[in-house]
Amino acid sequence: MSENIYEIITEISKRRGFFWSSFEIYGGMAGYVTYGDYGVKLKRNIEALWREYFVRKQGFFEIDDPITNPSKIFEASGHLSNFKEYATICNQCGRGFRADHLIEEKIAQEHVEVLGVEAIKKLLVENKIKCPTCGGELKEPSLVLTMFQTQIGATGNEIGYMRPEAAQGMFLNFKRCFQANRERIPFAISQQGTVMRNEISPRRGVHRVREFTIMELELFYDPQNAVCRWLSDVENERIRVLTEEMVENQLEEPLEITVKEAIIKKVVLTEWQGYFMGLSKKFLCSLGIPSEKQRFRAHLPQERSHYSSQTFDHEVFTKSWGWIEVSGHANRTDYDLKSHMKASGVDMTVLRPDKTRYIPHVIEPSYGISRLVYVTMEYAYEQKESNNEKRNIFRFPRDLAPYQISVQPLVTKDGLPELAIELHDTLLKAGYRAIYDEGGSIGRRYARQDEVGTPIAITIDYETKDKGLVTIRDRDTWKQVQTHIHDLLDKLKLYFNGESFMDLGPIFE
Amino acid sequence: MSENIYEIITEISKRRGFFWSSFEIYGGMAGYVTYGDYGVKLKRNIEALWREYFVRKQGFFEIDDPITNPSKIFEASGHLSNFKEYATICNQCGRGFRADHLIEEKIAQEHVEVLGVEAIKKLLVENKIKCPTCGGELKEPSLVLTMFQTQIGATGNEIGYMRPEAAQGMFLNFKRCFQANRERIPFAISQQGTVMRNEISPRRGVHRVREFTIMELELFYDPQNAVCRWLSDVENERIRVLTEEMVENQLEEPLEITVKEAIIKKVVLTEWQGYFMGLSKKFLCSLGIPSEKQRFRAHLPQERSHYSSQTFDHEVFTKSWGWIEVSGHANRTDYDLKSHMKASGVDMTVLRPDKTRYIPHVIEPSYGISRLVYVTMEYAYEQKESNNEKRNIFRFPRDLAPYQISVQPLVTKDGLPELAIELHDTLLKAGYRAIYDEGGSIGRRYARQDEVGTPIAITIDYETKDKGLVTIRDRDTWKQVQTHIHDLLDKLKLYFNGESFMDLGPIFE
Repeated sequence: MSENIYEIITEISKRRGFFWSSFEIYGGMAGYVTYGDYGVKLKRNIEALWREYFVRKQGFFEIDDPITNPSKIFEASGHLSNFKEYATICNQCGRGFRADHLIEEKIAQEHVEVLGVEAIKKLLVENKIKCPTCGGELKEPSLVLTMFQTQIGATGNEIGYMRPEAAQGMFLNFKRCFQANRERIPFAISQQGTVMRNEISPRRGVHRVREFTIMELELFYDPQNAVCRWLSDVENERIRVLTEEMVENQLEEPLEITVKEAIIKKVVLTEWQGYFMGLSKKFLCSLGIPSEKQRFRAHLPQERSHYSSQTFDHEVFTKSWGWIEVSGHANRTDYDLKSHMKASGVDMTVLRPDKTRYIPHVIEPSYGISRLVYVTMEYAYEQKESNNEKRNIFRFPRDLAPYQISVQPLVTKDGLPELAIELHDTLLKAGYRAIYDEGGSIGRRYARQDEVGTPIAITIDYETKDKGLVTIRDRDTWKQVQTHIHDLLDKLKLYFNGESFMDLGPIFE
Repeated sequence: MSENIYEIITEISKRRGFFWSSFEIYGGMAGYVTYGDYGVKLKRNIEALWREYFVRKQGFFEIDDPITNPSKIFEASGHLSNFKEYATICNQCGRGFRADHLIEEKIAQEHVEVLGVEAIKKLLVENKIKCPTCGGELKEPSLVLTMFQTQIGATGNEIGYMRPEAAQGMFLNFKRCFQANRERIPFAISQQGTVMRNEISPRRGVHRVREFTIMELELFYDPQNAVCRWLSDVENERIRVLTEEMVENQLEEPLEITVKEAIIKKVVLTEWQGYFMGLSKKFLCSLGIPSEKQRFRAHLPQERSHYSSQTFDHEVFTKSWGWIEVSGHANRTDYDLKSHMKASGVDMTVLRPDKTRYIPHVIEPSYGISRLVYVTMEYAYEQKESNNEKRNIFRFPRDLAPYQISVQPLVTKDGLPELAIELHDTLLKAGYRAIYDEGGSIGRRYARQDEVGTPIAITIDYETKDKGLVTIRDRDTWKQVQTHIHDLLDKLKLYFNGESFMDLGPIFE
């Protein structure tokens, strides 16, 4: 199974409506993914859960800033000079590729990008790398800007770019939010929104896409008073860290350490960064990713973005591709506010109680939704044999599942559909994501709900009509409980509060 | 007040953090709006309410399709030929303007756009219209494309455009969704996502922006069997309609009629369109827009989009600008599916029970979020005198308010903040959007919460410590109720289920 789990998930996703390649009827286009009904809902639930962990409790700000930005923003932020990748074009077929990726695939080395253009040129030649599509000769690699350009104003000629990260919005609007926060620091601004990256050669479905929802948070703090008031919430969380030194020496076994120890031992340089790494671990656990399948990998100095003083990638082990980054935890220092202060002339300093002024420093946790959706699906996926049939199940955490409950009449006659529709309405009113399903045999409908990860199926049958009894069926155990319809809402509440299905009543298979 | 309500709302929005002009620190850019914390939350609540009305009950599909599309999509859809506006450029200062809008402002005529380029040229000359900014001569008007163009692929040269509507996503993915729906019709696909329109001369803050969230739904049905199964839910809703004939004759007083009558009298040509118009009226009522401040205005044939056979604008009367469109209700016929079938070669027909094949027809309700946010704010706004001070209040419907409850300790000592923080945590866990507020006098804090529309404020004082009593204060009446903290969740539940504040307990001022 492990070799082709990506293919299995992709096949189910397409057929049932989680996600698929966009513009399919026109032959598709690499780097673009469309989410279907189940995908939209899973995505939305993950986004809401992220806010629960990173925004809601702390009372942090949210903003929504434009995707399109005039070019001066990215001049000031450094993106126009730095948001580039090594591209090489095939002389024969004209296709473009990431030069560093072609080398990595050939010689099994990682992070070739950081070696610089001369080394990359040499490696391409030395390893006799040809066009992977047509075998043609490749042109010399060069750095190309990977932001989408456009022109703002239908008659003017103001150059604009589509943001490749949401963070600049938080820096541009820092002052206004700071004032709305009555000039108190530390505080954070977060944003969930679309970003676009003009990838040279996107592949792998949801893994590297040109357009996706990013979830970012910028925490502004005084470097002379970097105390995180919520640290105690996560300080005893054990995290697995590959330090810079370990990465340098290509050690594979991470250090397992509590957040508190990591801060004391200066593995993590600030309390705020430790706090968000601890939260991040808990957040991924609640997506269903076990702790031992997570690690934080330090960036080497030469790998770090132009603005960062310390960065960790939060990585998840996938059966499809090994370790992949799902989140970045960067110390952006005062780089961005300073840059915009310089370029705009607007004062970005704030006042300390002792009347000295300073530019706040920034810790940033950042997540791409498409990879979170994918790893959630991979860890939820299970194959089960039933009557010599292979059955697909997504065991999504109960609250994350696209739909929580399906309602089905045993047959589509004798008033059963009407009763089922009435129950469906009741569940919607009670706030559940409920779906009504009346097509095919009950067994087929259960299988269908397993395949989209609906935790609970409720069947309306003749006993419902006669005695008010309904059958509740559990996705994870395939066991069933019969209950009176008057007790149903109470039982569902228990179940979605974490009660074991087995405790809901006498079980039958 | 009525003349400057737009200025008042804009001022509060900026200061408190609902919305403001983007890229402010660089001097701003017309057509771009940033939402702050209160704005993001209000927007999200409106989006969720829309899904409640238009998607959730019916079990309609949701999708999330890319913003960037390759050019062939908009070639096929007709946008490359039709998504154009009349622009004129000033010879002197180089600024661009909507030629039709300049004429409309000068001669108080509406919908000049439909007159065509020759008439517009003539009207510009006849009315001696000059550049509104510098007084310079204007060039001859011409039609310009108002989609943002870009290049997809950092090394290639595939032209792409940013979508100006989300609808094409529903047509492109129709087949896949239709299959996921087990080939049953009628069914609908909806989408909430960003669209971009390269407006020639955007003005008026949130009224005409270049980037906004659209909420669209495409209902696919068989024109030979156009029965809407949910019509009875809205058939007795009274809607106010300006028919084509009334618009033609410039009549201002709309026909007031039930949805059912409108369908019977063929004022509205299909059941599905009537259904969505009825829902739309109810939806706007629940945003706080009274029925008599709403109307549906028919498009004249020459005004309609290139794809439409009947269109109504759902308009709201604003104190700021008179009637403005907040939603469009279009019968798109089979135009789009047919166009994509022709261009892609993919069969888009579906099978009737009698085995004949047909291309489904489409009814589309479509909403732009920024105008909905604005009209919600305008209708919620009230000014109240208190101690010779003018106080701003947003009386948002209870469930729509950015925050539902604020929690405040009377003073920041003697353990009151700890009690308040504990209560804040309890409310968050109970699912409320609660905010903790400890700065300034209680009176100032109440005023602050009124100004962002928080319905309920709970104060923790010495009586809380001694006797477990808390004070609940109502935004709308400024009255207060004291209650035991153990009864608080029950009372809040009653209140947010619609109970009058007066019924929560003995009132004091």
